[in-house]
Amino acid sequence: MTNRVTIVEVGPRDGLQNEAARISAADKVAFVERLAAAGLPVIEVTSFVRPDRVPQLADAREVFAALASSGDGEAGAASAGAGGEAGASRRGADTRYTALVPNLTGLREALAAGVREVAIFAAASEGFSQRNTNRSIAESLTAFVDVCREAQAAGVRVRGYLSTAFGCPFDGAVDPRRVGEIARRLRDLGVYEVAISDTIGIAHPGQVRPVVEATLSAGLDISEVALHFHDTRGQALANVMAALPLGVRTFDASAGGLGGCPFAPGATGNLATEDLVYLLDGLGYETGVSLPGVIDASAFIEPLVGHPLPSRVYRASR
Amino acid sequence: MTNRVTIVEVGPRDGLQNEAARISAADKVAFVERLAAAGLPVIEVTSFVRPDRVPQLADAREVFAALASSGDGEAGAASAGAGGEAGASRRGADTRYTALVPNLTGLREALAAGVREVAIFAAASEGFSQRNTNRSIAESLTAFVDVCREAQAAGVRVRGYLSTAFGCPFDGAVDPRRVGEIARRLRDLGVYEVAISDTIGIAHPGQVRPVVEATLSAGLDISEVALHFHDTRGQALANVMAALPLGVRTFDASAGGLGGCPFAPGATGNLATEDLVYLLDGLGYETGVSLPGVIDASAFIEPLVGHPLPSRVYRASR
Repeated sequence: MTNRVTIVEVGPRDGLQNEAARISAADKVAFVERLAAAGLPVIEVTSFVRPDRVPQLADAREVFAALASSGDGEAGAASAGAGGEAGASRRGADTRYTALVPNLTGLREALAAGVREVAIFAAASEGFSQRNTNRSIAESLTAFVDVCREAQAAGVRVRGYLSTAFGCPFDGAVDPRRVGEIARRLRDLGVYEVAISDTIGIAHPGQVRPVVEATLSAGLDISEVALHFHDTRGQALANVMAALPLGVRTFDASAGGLGGCPFAPGATGNLATEDLVYLLDGLGYETGVSLPGVIDASAFIEPLVGHPLPSRVYRASR
Repeated sequence: MTNRVTIVEVGPRDGLQNEAARISAADKVAFVERLAAAGLPVIEVTSFVRPDRVPQLADAREVFAALASSGDGEAGAASAGAGGEAGASRRGADTRYTALVPNLTGLREALAAGVREVAIFAAASEGFSQRNTNRSIAESLTAFVDVCREAQAAGVRVRGYLSTAFGCPFDGAVDPRRVGEIARRLRDLGVYEVAISDTIGIAHPGQVRPVVEATLSAGLDISEVALHFHDTRGQALANVMAALPLGVRTFDASAGGLGGCPFAPGATGNLATEDLVYLLDGLGYETGVSLPGVIDASAFIEPLVGHPLPSRVYRASR
């Protein structure tokens, strides 16, 4: 097994979309550029969704245009052909900037903005699929067929998220076999990687092996499996500890643990990038990410979101 | 390896001594009784130190007297002879109540108060030993010879803490062989267990194996090794994950993560009992501890310490 780990920085998208304070496009660009300078190899910058659904990300086009012209990453074009080799030692200019797209309209807007890598999403539970997208799982997968086809025709890579893979706020427990099945269907749509996601931060390490193994049994290669944890119950790093021996080498995280404030009920951030880097550095994994660089990015965004960021490593550094 | 894990609850001592708000003896007793009702098998209740050194714990005698008369645990007498079998299924009446003693004076006060189990401490680094106790490591170990002899003569069990085992704020890195050596010297004084302690919350999982193995190389049995983490950098549960496969089955924790507030610089709590129980429940270990019971104890103490407790599981429950 390789000792390289790829950290997918989702703070600008998954983090900021859960923050109440509105951040300007210019500040988002400055935040993303700091994250790129910290060596993060992949940054999910924004989401091309209907502005009324996620007002925080209504400036997706503007943000991408500014990033493309700044030369940092050229909207992912620099490494769009790099395949699965999400380089751990690359910096700034090699960072891949990605965007979430909920449908064909979103994909076309993303393509027009110069995005070279997109992410789609499905849920592992019907209850969440219905409430989040007003569609069944099968309907949402069908709707993504054209999205994936058009993305691939444009030479744009597609990542897949699989939400509520460790439990659903509406349906409760989720069968790992169901997770494997839908992960396989996403893979068959052409996604290069499935981010198995603990949307509500309920996963514990006892679930990690059965869920990851279910995706392998369904036919995915371990290199196609990423894990996406929220730290609602403080288990995110323990889950990473359970996943590393299985060979998982891609984890999502957000700078400072953006998206959550421990004292705001219901607001639960992603696994904090700083806490993950501290762990991986300690275990001798290579990420190419500079811890002080991430802390610098968090220190930039913290006053703009208007509350202390929950990352423990970040707080210990202040 | 057994799937029983013993959680040593240190909130009333290590937690409260780091809280600014003064808690009354009656409230401490009520807190400890809630922890016992939650099924915690061992609770470090207080410290018999000079009142001017730790004003928060100046009421140690009063607290112990109240606990002894309440019938919960009878100051540890109920199970003082249970040996290493710190029962995971025992409740209330079987909880062992312990106290820290810094010297012979403290031990005698503890004995007079009816304490049936005490803890002593040494540091793994000279810098911390000097600043914390004004003695070298060798001097502090020598001073504990009489403490251990007198405790044993009274039929009182002794636990040992080994501070700064993963790093020292004054001396920096600490050689695991040094940790093994001092752990062995504590064991040779007659302690039944050494709590290898990350006093400043700097440990990462990459350190856990070398440190634990150093104690085994020095002659300790794995059943004599406990681990004591602070969650300053969010690594505490990840460290537990690294320790479980090595056979470590005793971990210190504090309800709610007492002793730390994420937004108070420098204040860093212990690993939160709730977060540890959530992890161990998920992994299928038996602790005998009721998660709702611990949450109840935290909900009792939170308004008294006057700030939100940092435990993620506790916060997610509110």
